[in-house]
Amino acid sequence: MPQVYLASSTAPVNIAVVKYWGKRDPVLNLPTNSSLSVTLSQEDLRAFTSVACSQDFPEDRMWLNGEERHVPADKRLVACLKALRALRQQVEDKDTSAPTLSRMCIQIASENNFPTAAGLASSAAGFAALVRAIADLYQLPQSAAELSRIARQGSGSACRSLFGGYVAWQMGSQDDGSDSMAVQVAPQEAWPQMRACILVASAQKKDVSSTAGMQHTVATSTLFAERVRQTVPDRMQAMTSAIEARDFAKFAEITMRDSNSFHAVCLDTYPPIFYMNDISRACVRLVEQMNAAAGATIAAYTYDAGPNTVVYYLEENEAKVLAYVKAAVSQGTQGMDSPQFSEVTPASDVQEAAHDVIEKGVQRVILTKVGPGAQSVSESLLDAFGFPTSEPIL
Amino acid sequence: MPQVYLASSTAPVNIAVVKYWGKRDPVLNLPTNSSLSVTLSQEDLRAFTSVACSQDFPEDRMWLNGEERHVPADKRLVACLKALRALRQQVEDKDTSAPTLSRMCIQIASENNFPTAAGLASSAAGFAALVRAIADLYQLPQSAAELSRIARQGSGSACRSLFGGYVAWQMGSQDDGSDSMAVQVAPQEAWPQMRACILVASAQKKDVSSTAGMQHTVATSTLFAERVRQTVPDRMQAMTSAIEARDFAKFAEITMRDSNSFHAVCLDTYPPIFYMNDISRACVRLVEQMNAAAGATIAAYTYDAGPNTVVYYLEENEAKVLAYVKAAVSQGTQGMDSPQFSEVTPASDVQEAAHDVIEKGVQRVILTKVGPGAQSVSESLLDAFGFPTSEPIL
Repeated sequence: MPQVYLASSTAPVNIAVVKYWGKRDPVLNLPTNSSLSVTLSQEDLRAFTSVACSQDFPEDRMWLNGEERHVPADKRLVACLKALRALRQQVEDKDTSAPTLSRMCIQIASENNFPTAAGLASSAAGFAALVRAIADLYQLPQSAAELSRIARQGSGSACRSLFGGYVAWQMGSQDDGSDSMAVQVAPQEAWPQMRACILVASAQKKDVSSTAGMQHTVATSTLFAERVRQTVPDRMQAMTSAIEARDFAKFAEITMRDSNSFHAVCLDTYPPIFYMNDISRACVRLVEQMNAAAGATIAAYTYDAGPNTVVYYLEENEAKVLAYVKAAVSQGTQGMDSPQFSEVTPASDVQEAAHDVIEKGVQRVILTKVGPGAQSVSESLLDAFGFPTSEPIL
Repeated sequence: MPQVYLASSTAPVNIAVVKYWGKRDPVLNLPTNSSLSVTLSQEDLRAFTSVACSQDFPEDRMWLNGEERHVPADKRLVACLKALRALRQQVEDKDTSAPTLSRMCIQIASENNFPTAAGLASSAAGFAALVRAIADLYQLPQSAAELSRIARQGSGSACRSLFGGYVAWQMGSQDDGSDSMAVQVAPQEAWPQMRACILVASAQKKDVSSTAGMQHTVATSTLFAERVRQTVPDRMQAMTSAIEARDFAKFAEITMRDSNSFHAVCLDTYPPIFYMNDISRACVRLVEQMNAAAGATIAAYTYDAGPNTVVYYLEENEAKVLAYVKAAVSQGTQGMDSPQFSEVTPASDVQEAAHDVIEKGVQRVILTKVGPGAQSVSESLLDAFGFPTSEPIL
């Protein structure tokens, strides 16, 4: 029986603090501007991907959260597989004793430990886990930065999930995308106190997919070019400095301003794109109130292409931040039983209007923190024959 | 008994299609960009102001909607009175037989025929009516354009309410504001088919006053300068051409894009300003649906500094537009008994999500149309002694 080669990886979600929005090359996923994110802990949110190859496999196959997907229909997946096989080919060319994995079909199983519908950057985590797993399967010598060029072709922000801590995606200038890759600004250990509280808004259908939305913005917003020309380059520099100096107030201000700028160019798109809703806006006001009450910027909101609020804060201010969350969110909400909430006294001064909206509108609270990048794991979603198991195999 | 001099005027609301947002001189109300509006009929929305002067009046007094206001506390009102008295002084200097009204105190009564809380540009109508009434009282020879410089100092957009039809406020370049004034782009008669349907959203406290809000935008938005530099000048030209050509599709597209651009720079303000809410967004989608169903741009939404939707459309498309309004709005809503609705069959394809939000959120519907500017009237809110009456006197 031919050998089955197996590898598995997990990868994290990352939430940008300087946002990616706009492609200068939609096929290669080359962005119009650089971006910067915080990688979140995989204990709370992660994609888990196993890959197998064997001479016996007649075609490439993939199972996502237990359901089979048609691989040739997913052009982004096909592009990643092609690029990874080319790198494996180089390994085989150098070492003729190496098995010719590049010529075998591949089977992939991937699962998220959080609902895809929650709009929590599942594709970024998924493609990062896929690229990490196949790079391990193929025993590729490339660095995470080099692999990030491939993950980028799967889903732009996936390139950032290969790294832990604080990660920049440098837009690059080459037409072939060879210099459009992720680099680590600072490892998780450099500023390990960073926490994130995610307020998941009631699941609604997304207004516009981010892939389609961003290209409408590029094509129709008269304000977008200015964001790309000056606003984001300035913020990339200022944010890098803030992280290096562990200056939370600066980090927070840039994070909030850049989230607003991103949603402003969405609104300036024609027809307009709305991702934030009344729940999001009430959460903005809640964060502003936390900061006003503290007399310092201890919390920052940010919104991706959906209404969920991510609140960044430092460990030392956890009680202050969670006091407002506890006061605003309905106590029966999923996640409110986290031990961090148990000893917190709810804030007594939450604005009534914000409270009413948040109590009804926030469906789940996730407490997490900065974490490591994509990593190899010994568990597997595929059995020894390379087929999905119902339960991961250790 | 000394003579009491009396005059009265009404003035309309105007709703901008290229928005005013930002002052380059907050005292003189000099804007950072030109703007353009449609003047709405005074049958539906108007300010009504009567003024009196007499040697017997010991001080300037004002009653707004029946409540006395302290005149010296209102710096904008004081500035208007000062400028108008200076013009009266010129009349008296030329004609020494003219009564010295410029040296008399003035009494003012003003009323709106719509709730101030509805956020329908009541200050613009109010200051236009005031300036028109005092100009009549003083028998000033100045043209409406010249008077618009004074109305502008009361409330920026008031300058546009002196004219009917389609009105531009040219930002000007002089430091003293002498060239920052309103001009008529086209009279009402040039394009009399323009209609407006106002969907008044449930009264909530305004997020930030527009006076304070716009200066925060100027100070903190990184995208605002581009709006002022290129976006608005381009649109002023394109909108003027669209009105001259009576090209509704072009008029509508610019109107919608510019409303979005204005709210985008509000969102890009730090801290962000939100005027549109979930009700507004549902109304945007409703208008998009009207246009999609018609296969042409027959309706345009626009939002001022609040969540109310103003939908512009042409008379010929009234049935098509009102079919969607009738289907979305609760039938018991104030204004739904207007005769225009009676023969309209509600559209059957309003999106459920939009319907649910609009049905609950829209409190009043006002059907109106393009109309004339501020005008002198013979009714009066002041009696022969110059004091408020409970009912207007014919």
